[in-house]
Amino acid sequence: MTPAPPARTDARRHHDPSVRGFASDNYAGAHPEILAALALANGGHQVAYGEDEYTDHLQRVMHSHFGPTAEAFPVFNGTGANVTALQALTDRWGAVICAETAHINVDEGGAPERMAGLKLLTVPTPDGKLTPELIDRQAFGWEDEHRAMPQVVSIAQNTELGTVYTPDEIRAIVEHAHGLGMKVHLDGARLANAAASLNVPMRAFTNAVGVDILSLGGTKNGLLFGESVVVLNPEVGRHLRHLRKMSMQLASKMRFVSVQFEALLAKDLWLRNARHANAMAQRLAEGVRAVHGVEILYPVQANAVFARLPHEVSLRLQKRFRFYFWDEAAGDVRWMCSFDTTEEDVDAFVLALKEEMAR
Amino acid sequence: MTPAPPARTDARRHHDPSVRGFASDNYAGAHPEILAALALANGGHQVAYGEDEYTDHLQRVMHSHFGPTAEAFPVFNGTGANVTALQALTDRWGAVICAETAHINVDEGGAPERMAGLKLLTVPTPDGKLTPELIDRQAFGWEDEHRAMPQVVSIAQNTELGTVYTPDEIRAIVEHAHGLGMKVHLDGARLANAAASLNVPMRAFTNAVGVDILSLGGTKNGLLFGESVVVLNPEVGRHLRHLRKMSMQLASKMRFVSVQFEALLAKDLWLRNARHANAMAQRLAEGVRAVHGVEILYPVQANAVFARLPHEVSLRLQKRFRFYFWDEAAGDVRWMCSFDTTEEDVDAFVLALKEEMAR
Amino acid sequence: MTPAPPARTDARRHHDPSVRGFASDNYAGAHPEILAALALANGGHQVAYGEDEYTDHLQRVMHSHFGPTAEAFPVFNGTGANVTALQALTDRWGAVICAETAHINVDEGGAPERMAGLKLLTVPTPDGKLTPELIDRQAFGWEDEHRAMPQVVSIAQNTELGTVYTPDEIRAIVEHAHGLGMKVHLDGARLANAAASLNVPMRAFTNAVGVDILSLGGTKNGLLFGESVVVLNPEVGRHLRHLRKMSMQLASKMRFVSVQFEALLAKDLWLRNARHANAMAQRLAEGVRAVHGVEILYPVQANAVFARLPHEVSLRLQKRFRFYFWDEAAGDVRWMCSFDTTEEDVDAFVLALKEEMAR
Amino acid sequence: MTPAPPARTDARRHHDPSVRGFASDNYAGAHPEILAALALANGGHQVAYGEDEYTDHLQRVMHSHFGPTAEAFPVFNGTGANVTALQALTDRWGAVICAETAHINVDEGGAPERMAGLKLLTVPTPDGKLTPELIDRQAFGWEDEHRAMPQVVSIAQNTELGTVYTPDEIRAIVEHAHGLGMKVHLDGARLANAAASLNVPMRAFTNAVGVDILSLGGTKNGLLFGESVVVLNPEVGRHLRHLRKMSMQLASKMRFVSVQFEALLAKDLWLRNARHANAMAQRLAEGVRAVHGVEILYPVQANAVFARLPHEVSLRLQKRFRFYFWDEAAGDVRWMCSFDTTEEDVDAFVLALKEEMAR
Repeated sequence: MTPAPPARTDARRHHDPSVRGFASDNYAGAHPEILAALALANGGHQVAYGEDEYTDHLQRVMHSHFGPTAEAFPVFNGTGANVTALQALTDRWGAVICAETAHINVDEGGAPERMAGLKLLTVPTPDGKLTPELIDRQAFGWEDEHRAMPQVVSIAQNTELGTVYTPDEIRAIVEHAHGLGMKVHLDGARLANAAASLNVPMRAFTNAVGVDILSLGGTKNGLLFGESVVVLNPEVGRHLRHLRKMSMQLASKMRFVSVQFEALLAKDLWLRNARHANAMAQRLAEGVRAVHGVEILYPVQANAVFARLPHEVSLRLQKRFRFYFWDEAAGDVRWMCSFDTTEEDVDAFVLALKEEMAR
Repeated sequence: MTPAPPARTDARRHHDPSVRGFASDNYAGAHPEILAALALANGGHQVAYGEDEYTDHLQRVMHSHFGPTAEAFPVFNGTGANVTALQALTDRWGAVICAETAHINVDEGGAPERMAGLKLLTVPTPDGKLTPELIDRQAFGWEDEHRAMPQVVSIAQNTELGTVYTPDEIRAIVEHAHGLGMKVHLDGARLANAAASLNVPMRAFTNAVGVDILSLGGTKNGLLFGESVVVLNPEVGRHLRHLRKMSMQLASKMRFVSVQFEALLAKDLWLRNARHANAMAQRLAEGVRAVHGVEILYPVQANAVFARLPHEVSLRLQKRFRFYFWDEAAGDVRWMCSFDTTEEDVDAFVLALKEEMAR
Repeated sequence: MTPAPPARTDARRHHDPSVRGFASDNYAGAHPEILAALALANGGHQVAYGEDEYTDHLQRVMHSHFGPTAEAFPVFNGTGANVTALQALTDRWGAVICAETAHINVDEGGAPERMAGLKLLTVPTPDGKLTPELIDRQAFGWEDEHRAMPQVVSIAQNTELGTVYTPDEIRAIVEHAHGLGMKVHLDGARLANAAASLNVPMRAFTNAVGVDILSLGGTKNGLLFGESVVVLNPEVGRHLRHLRKMSMQLASKMRFVSVQFEALLAKDLWLRNARHANAMAQRLAEGVRAVHGVEILYPVQANAVFARLPHEVSLRLQKRFRFYFWDEAAGDVRWMCSFDTTEEDVDAFVLALKEEMAR
Repeated sequence: MTPAPPARTDARRHHDPSVRGFASDNYAGAHPEILAALALANGGHQVAYGEDEYTDHLQRVMHSHFGPTAEAFPVFNGTGANVTALQALTDRWGAVICAETAHINVDEGGAPERMAGLKLLTVPTPDGKLTPELIDRQAFGWEDEHRAMPQVVSIAQNTELGTVYTPDEIRAIVEHAHGLGMKVHLDGARLANAAASLNVPMRAFTNAVGVDILSLGGTKNGLLFGESVVVLNPEVGRHLRHLRKMSMQLASKMRFVSVQFEALLAKDLWLRNARHANAMAQRLAEGVRAVHGVEILYPVQANAVFARLPHEVSLRLQKRFRFYFWDEAAGDVRWMCSFDTTEEDVDAFVLALKEEMAR
């Protein structure tokens, strides 16, 4: 039974809900089914800090996706998920091998270093993807106390550049890392988009290929907020609860994170949202390819389109639609689609791009 | 205009919304007006990470409570608010004077030490409240590099023991701390309850008496989640944004934190909720005082009642209502009321207490 | 064969080597036999960072004191030794139970918290000594993620107050800690003084009673500089080398730390120095007891005498001999003897004390 | 007056003082004039922790090299000097731009990240030297809280690759960094070698060109141990004492660090040692250039020679003389000369190289 609508609030609407852009999947709001789930979980008392029935039930939902040994630890945001997960895989003297473009390296304000003392050993990549060979550029010196000890390989699926690993590519990375005594973390802020892109279950490129721990994104896939560390290899998760708390990621009213994930993952909302966002990116890429003078930079495999175009065109276009430069000096931009992007949004944007290119 | 109810969700209700206890104000859900606010802020695109219109508007709401120079930085939880705020007041070599019973000392999993390298200089207190004299037990040695340098006094209003400082008491602390070159942080996880208890505006014991920075609680006052660092002294807040991000407390879809605070603070929801919770605690205290053999331990000034009773009585009572031991060896328990506690809840609890005491 | 004396140096003597006081055993220089050892180890090339023959030989010297499984890791100073050792015993979420007066709590500038993220769980003590009962005030909550997890008990032998544990007292602490799943660290900045005081080998109250790891002091016992982490329980020392390096405690020309320890420990220099310092403290205490109006505060069991006397007397006396207030408000002072304190120094000081008391 | 030789020690000589190699300038012992200085400073009592007369006098010696506002803070080792200095230049949210090959990035076990929470923003370089253009690859995003804020440029003189900046090159870096609001740290573990190489005073490329803070090496230049943070820009050094202590770098008997620096710097021992080491590297380079099949990799400007030769030749040669691979896969090796390297050492090594190349 759906609860009755709330009668009133002292908040006011300050924005125009008809405006959408291509800046980030974080610019979107929450999917209506997520809001409905919150109302469902409301009322009465539930044990705080994760001992509630929603978080308990979420474990079973996670099992259906990631196997019976998976354990989910809901947290607040992606940086929190990553830093918590990486601490679970490292000793105090451990280091993390990752792509130079990794979110943990460039977009988390130094949180891995500052909050967890983690050294990141970075590798330049052509497309944001690590390989066993690229990992080997940093995978050495375990006995050398002068070197931060490589203990983890951290990859992102999909990558910051919108590219997607095949399950076999991740399997090869995991086997290589495990063979060297390292563990593997997967930053899945947009994991659903990767699964939709590959048309496989999420397990196919996580627990099925040996990934040890996962940052599972929710926010970009339609939640109000909420990510989850998912421990796939039980031996690394024994003290995740302590790490989550001390990393300031323990929600008191956790039922409200967990029920959002349930709404997302119990059936297919995660996949509907991801497929839609990916399809909009494909539509956008097709439209852009028809515009002379605009170059698409990486394979469009998920919900991001990276392009290169004249700088002044981007500046004019930004007055009509919000989006970000990726490398302003090079003229590179990033266009993101989200679960609420419409075909009309895409078509209007492509038209505007054509117009600005033609001026 | 209230938005239409959400049509569906794949989540299910797993709990009985009629069950309430006295374990924690975090066991309660969200106030219905808060859920309504979320729906209002949903839809369309808003700039992520705090550049949205809700967070912008929230500043004006905060000004109405804390004066025109106040600046709010919404964060996820109380530990995050405290650690972020304390970093804003300390150099790398700084230390924080606080009560031995302070939440930052006993209930945050060591986050201040681990995440921010903060040394806490603790003082035993009779009732959770610091005084200038108690502060002086740790306020020395600024020139001594062997000693962590006291740079902040952190107090909680109300305290972990449910006691409430008068505005004059806080003024005296602030003047003393400032006179010694220290700043003052106020942990206001339950600030609204203190204001309701004192029957004064929140400003009366914060900016009006010189507090430099505030952790303003929302969750315990009826939000789903969300606290806010509020900078009252502008000179300490210059880089709060950087501290918040690196402390893993930056929400991407921040509009959903900010609109909850707007719903809470724009009119009087914060005060209605706090007054009600306090009134329930008074009703509970009155009921308990009539039960022979149960001792109330501290002045009941907000929404908490601490009591001492036979251990086996507590164990039996806990089978009927959830609550926590505070000091199990001593037989001390804590009973918390929240915005959704009803008179019937209280009366039923007091009756049960009587019955169990009589067995 | 002793090397020939160095012919020249561009440094000049800036101090009067005949002046001594009672401020600290750190005010003394190095024992001449230590300087001779440095000359012996000089010349030629030795592998840096601890792979040299002096550090190798030091292990055998340490075995003669602390048993065949002991492993020594020379470091620079006491704070470095303590912080390195404590990291070896703690997970990221671990905490350390110690006396409120412990050096790690009051005299290390917050290094345990800042450098290692360690939470110290402190206990007030009458005489600087922990007991199983006192430990129990902080030894709880291992399953509670809101509490920093107690994983180590850290004691000092002798304590900051100059008191000395008996071997049985330490055994009781170790058995209690181990029974609760905690490890035991012993801060032995003045370990030699304790052994001399108890008239037992150093092993009698360290490895023989189950202590897991040791900070072994050298500087206060006559070295120029140098302390050593000594791992007694091999299972905790596996990655000490990495911890030492990242804690900035790895000496490149380590032969010069190791050979000092060899000179100290190979035969009986450590004991001669400690016995002498202790004897001077006894002589001092006897002298002081004969002065009316001066109260000795703690049992004089090692090389420290704590006393209470009129504040203005102390101020006058400090113009004649250097020493420190311990608690200036209370009139408490600390008088330390060192390996180079002479009977004449003590007698002159007692005479001066008498004179100043009589004014 | 030279003190009498120490009469005895219980330490024994374990090494052959006639053996030298080319592995590291850390393999050498101490210069005899340094040992003589220690004896001079010994005896009597001196205030601990830097309030002694030797440390006081050292300030004047430092002024003669680095100008009247320079302030020296002796520490234990290079990692300690660097981490202490970098903390003085950074806020909690600050980051450090450095060469990918910098010692702070590759050889300090992650100490900057773990102990100080510092994010290093690295730049690949052809020869270990930064330029304004290379700095610009990381010098951006000061307003972006998602990015660790670049606040410092850290360069090494000479670099890890044995190359030496001209004073003008450093001036250009400093002006560029200051123009962007950043400070400049210079890692001078081998500063004397650079001065000798450039044939200018040390000030010519430090304070004279605006460097803010310096890690001044002593160990590699002939001390037993000891480095010094030297604050050149007084506004950054206000709390260096607190940073040094909490970074576990505060020597109790500091007179023994300071007097070594006095012996090194009061007249010309620093320069004699450096010139000699550099001259030996030149002699070595000349010898090597005459050996067919061995390639010298970088300009030989100080006391290091980097070369590429067949891997199996290196392995055979290492059985005769100690040295390290720099990049074993590429066949790159590093040969270091030190103050005690002799012409005979060099000639014997070159001869051995020829022999092994000829086999």
